[in-house]
Amino acid sequence: MAARNAFYAQSGGVTAVINASAAGVIETARRHKSKIARVYAGRNGIIGALTEDLIDTGKESTAAIRALKHTPSGAFGSCRYKLKGLEENRAQYERLIEVFKAHNIGYFFYNGGGDSADTCLKVSQLSEKLGYPIQAIHVPKTVDNDLPVTDCCPGFGSVAKYIAVSTREASFDVASMAKTSTKVFVIEVMGRHAGWIAAAGGMASSKDTDLPIVILFPEVAFDREKFLATVGEKVRRYGYCSVVVSEGVKGPDGKFLSDQGLRDAFGHAQLGGVAPVIASIVKDGLDLKYHWAVADYLQRAARHVASKTDLQQSYAVGKAAVEYALKGHNSVMPTIVRKASRPYKWAIGMAKLEDVANKEKMMPRDFITADGFGITDKCRSYLAPLIRGEDYPPYKDGLPTYVRLKNVAVKKKLNTEFKV
Amino acid sequence: MAARNAFYAQSGGVTAVINASAAGVIETARRHKSKIARVYAGRNGIIGALTEDLIDTGKESTAAIRALKHTPSGAFGSCRYKLKGLEENRAQYERLIEVFKAHNIGYFFYNGGGDSADTCLKVSQLSEKLGYPIQAIHVPKTVDNDLPVTDCCPGFGSVAKYIAVSTREASFDVASMAKTSTKVFVIEVMGRHAGWIAAAGGMASSKDTDLPIVILFPEVAFDREKFLATVGEKVRRYGYCSVVVSEGVKGPDGKFLSDQGLRDAFGHAQLGGVAPVIASIVKDGLDLKYHWAVADYLQRAARHVASKTDLQQSYAVGKAAVEYALKGHNSVMPTIVRKASRPYKWAIGMAKLEDVANKEKMMPRDFITADGFGITDKCRSYLAPLIRGEDYPPYKDGLPTYVRLKNVAVKKKLNTEFKV
Repeated sequence: MAARNAFYAQSGGVTAVINASAAGVIETARRHKSKIARVYAGRNGIIGALTEDLIDTGKESTAAIRALKHTPSGAFGSCRYKLKGLEENRAQYERLIEVFKAHNIGYFFYNGGGDSADTCLKVSQLSEKLGYPIQAIHVPKTVDNDLPVTDCCPGFGSVAKYIAVSTREASFDVASMAKTSTKVFVIEVMGRHAGWIAAAGGMASSKDTDLPIVILFPEVAFDREKFLATVGEKVRRYGYCSVVVSEGVKGPDGKFLSDQGLRDAFGHAQLGGVAPVIASIVKDGLDLKYHWAVADYLQRAARHVASKTDLQQSYAVGKAAVEYALKGHNSVMPTIVRKASRPYKWAIGMAKLEDVANKEKMMPRDFITADGFGITDKCRSYLAPLIRGEDYPPYKDGLPTYVRLKNVAVKKKLNTEFKV
Repeated sequence: MAARNAFYAQSGGVTAVINASAAGVIETARRHKSKIARVYAGRNGIIGALTEDLIDTGKESTAAIRALKHTPSGAFGSCRYKLKGLEENRAQYERLIEVFKAHNIGYFFYNGGGDSADTCLKVSQLSEKLGYPIQAIHVPKTVDNDLPVTDCCPGFGSVAKYIAVSTREASFDVASMAKTSTKVFVIEVMGRHAGWIAAAGGMASSKDTDLPIVILFPEVAFDREKFLATVGEKVRRYGYCSVVVSEGVKGPDGKFLSDQGLRDAFGHAQLGGVAPVIASIVKDGLDLKYHWAVADYLQRAARHVASKTDLQQSYAVGKAAVEYALKGHNSVMPTIVRKASRPYKWAIGMAKLEDVANKEKMMPRDFITADGFGITDKCRSYLAPLIRGEDYPPYKDGLPTYVRLKNVAVKKKLNTEFKV
């Protein structure tokens, strides 16, 4: 069979290691030029395919592609854009086929989370439903760690490490200050639906380094009195307390706690985070001095403290995606399979996209302590290997040297516009 | 002369490297046991002296003291507590002398910022004013970088590096998302009076890695229209923009921008940061999607990404403080003297405490660009060496192994209480 080209795109929120998956795809494809002639990346994800804005990754040097392994963010641009169903917007799919055909694209690698898996599933059905031969493989990525089937999600381990390290550091800080100043430190972390990232805050405390940490999960309805009693007890015992709060924590009424209808002095609405809300509750309820932080993008961009396990897995799923494509697979996703926790052993497995798309994996109830404010030993065993290992980027003049690709556009072959 | 004991205490907000100064003091004193018999640390700073709550650092192993070099926070506890003037509260000074006499303390090492330098100055006058022979040496420390005389302040370089690295990483992130999602990222940093830390955000952009960054300094009154025009222009040119905002930014009325009189739906006051205020201004004025982060304690506790230059200087001022004491000095502070910027050369100098106490060093006007939103080349030359070099802590199971000392109390010799 004559060589065909591959399309690769990054989708949804980016991570510290999604570019390592890109490197895995591109480096592996480069070793199989007889089957995959070129890898074209979508500029800004699937939008690049729809608008025929393709990037020729062949124009990038070996060194530049290698440097993707230590560069956070999405090197080709990502997007938040979900394809509608084939029945709802057939024109989108016909456009994809038009672009793919024009550029001889036979492989579709889509690097994203749950929504993106759904897009990839739809593209994988183009062969069957619209008669265009293509193999679509999903490359898993999400800091939220909420994809089903796979043991963990590439991107999560690095955020987890960042939150665990930062919570440990800030806890040491507040411990020093507690005698006369701050006694409660609140850090807000990502995870609107699933509490995996919040759980990672619990790893800051270990057998060697016992720290008072209270976690607020989106899976557990916020109980003000119980929360204040728990924080108060930690402060009495340790002198201080750190609170790790998920952005998605909801009150008993099912509304996000962050949604407080904040107004400034002029009555303008203010979009606040949940950390200042929790801090105010601590102040009102316990009259303790507090500080709060919102990690936001810092947590998912922090390549400088990425997890080596996560980095290796991110690369591995990119590599496996190409290998699966070369073996003729379609509509699948490489997964991380945990073979053992101690010592940690993992391998790459395969999931059908129909089992992955549009499903969310929440924290199991037995990963959360009975009081709802901590993580169990079972959760610790699960998380421990995922944050293990350091893999520092190179530095120049005190700053990490992150690569920016040339991102040379592939010459357009169609003379048609497409409105996204 | 018979050996006397030394008192060492940490004061004010802690840093990623203040414990390196402690190591410098303790390791150097241990090499001069004929003159400094023991180093006693104040538990929670000067409060430990007033309450006779002293820690015998002699009970700590060589390895534990060495580990202080890679441990953030204040290992003996810090405090926010300023001694009043001798005339205002003579009892405090008489109590200090009582405790010092009981424990044969002849050396006083005080590790802090501007307020602490004032405390140290007052203690240094005990010999002259109250007839108790003591040598008081100030060990500089402040993330705010606002001490006079010294070229820079130990603790600042590491925060600066953290903010520069984080701003670079988050800028890469938002660049990936800008096509369909977030276009403006806001990060709030410390520095209530001086904009040194905010300035460090400007280092995220370099000749190799041009990034659109707008800085809001506390030294420059906030001009809403000019700010929106500048951000709008960056977004048009780059597709996105990062804003680094100092917590101390004030409006034209001289009031902190963070002080917006925020109320929740029930009319309760909310203590917000300035980042969400700036984000709301961007949304209202430009209708662009934004994200915001507040680094808070994470920035000053981030030993995992500390500056090697800063670490070396922090150790050096601790060492020099002891050496100055052994040479008979009193009422002085070791300083960092810049000998050259390229290549960077520095040495330890000496300042009189009366020239240091209660003075703040602001950003020079020629460090800020004419438009008020950026840093000049002169500022870059100043900052560049301070963030240079990496010095990673050891890790175990994916987390940095920070030491916690035994902090064994020295047996009390006085039977008197003292209320602080």
